[in-house]
Amino acid sequence: MPDSPAVQATALAAPAARRGRPGYDQRQILEVAVAVFNEQGYDATSVAALADRLGLSKSAMYHHFDSKEQLLSLALDEALGSLEGVLQQPGARAGDAGERLGFVLQGAVTVLVDKLPFVTLLLRVRGNSDVERDALERRRAFDHQVTVMVRAAQEEGSVRDDVEASIATRLLFGMVNSLVEWYRPTGPESAADLADDVLTIALDGLRTR
Amino acid sequence: MPDSPAVQATALAAPAARRGRPGYDQRQILEVAVAVFNEQGYDATSVAALADRLGLSKSAMYHHFDSKEQLLSLALDEALGSLEGVLQQPGARAGDAGERLGFVLQGAVTVLVDKLPFVTLLLRVRGNSDVERDALERRRAFDHQVTVMVRAAQEEGSVRDDVEASIATRLLFGMVNSLVEWYRPTGPESAADLADDVLTIALDGLRTR
Repeated sequence: MPDSPAVQATALAAPAARRGRPGYDQRQILEVAVAVFNEQGYDATSVAALADRLGLSKSAMYHHFDSKEQLLSLALDEALGSLEGVLQQPGARAGDAGERLGFVLQGAVTVLVDKLPFVTLLLRVRGNSDVERDALERRRAFDHQVTVMVRAAQEEGSVRDDVEASIATRLLFGMVNSLVEWYRPTGPESAADLADDVLTIALDGLRTR
Repeated sequence: MPDSPAVQATALAAPAARRGRPGYDQRQILEVAVAVFNEQGYDATSVAALADRLGLSKSAMYHHFDSKEQLLSLALDEALGSLEGVLQQPGARAGDAGERLGFVLQGAVTVLVDKLPFVTLLLRVRGNSDVERDALERRRAFDHQVTVMVRAAQEEGSVRDDVEASIATRLLFGMVNSLVEWYRPTGPESAADLADDVLTIALDGLRTR
């Protein structure tokens, strides 16, 4: 099946000017793979389909990667590592729990916007393999750390305690994660604006009175 | 491939005591189909796989339904009809826009919990066929009506106007729709409790000061 003109343009624009075959590096292959996984579903994507999209032979693909699953693993690690990195920053580790929670929500929105295709892939993982189950386990650990933060904020009195901390966390991240469904980097809204909107609704609510 | 014991139990428990072959009615077939679509993905599910799950022949399936797509269409219509029904109720049509918005959010949570598998299927639709595109169009029309309500609430002064109405609507439904990812009817939280939690966070915010 021939590539569409749009796909050809991407394939021609991406590689540096080398001879013989398109000169992708590992990073570029990973980005194209993530895009194709999101379009077609990971399980439904073959290495042949990835190679076809890149204009590479399968053996050229395997020069860069051992398996399709290695690409998935790298992609999920990039999304998870970025989210986990938010929890390592000083703003998430020192100060009132309420302020740390605000910092983490803001950081999570920034990661979603900056790494949109990677986080989109992460949020679709259902646990069909060891790689996927490991990713789900890291997501749960992240959620757990945020839940602990919500609970600490409830105990210090900066966050209301009539919503159970784990449910509050799930609803907050429901709002944050929904960005992958509708946010497009070409729109008028910047990551910083969006993060402000999420914090405004989550922390202060929509109601004026 | 033999059914698992759990599947057999379902297949044996569901039909009334008729002879010859399991006596499903159209409703029961639809519910099983929705469950299988959610497990395996709609595109990846064959009519043969549905028939297998039900213990029916393909021709017995076609006695009840014209096509797999008809099952999808019925399922999406059930989810969308229920959501649209919330907008038709008196609480969504009369009174202050802020109160109507609260009513709609509460109603949407109730629909999600009551029709969890149907709404789960709806939220995964990506527009791969006319049936899916029609469903996306109805989702957009629903979102638009809620956005109009948010804007009216901003104009009457009951909802803050520093978040753009369409973004506020998307974030609110991001929170509501996330229920399909984690809510399980067997958990301790009732639909009414959840609706209260969503309204509390969305309208009043988490922050106490």
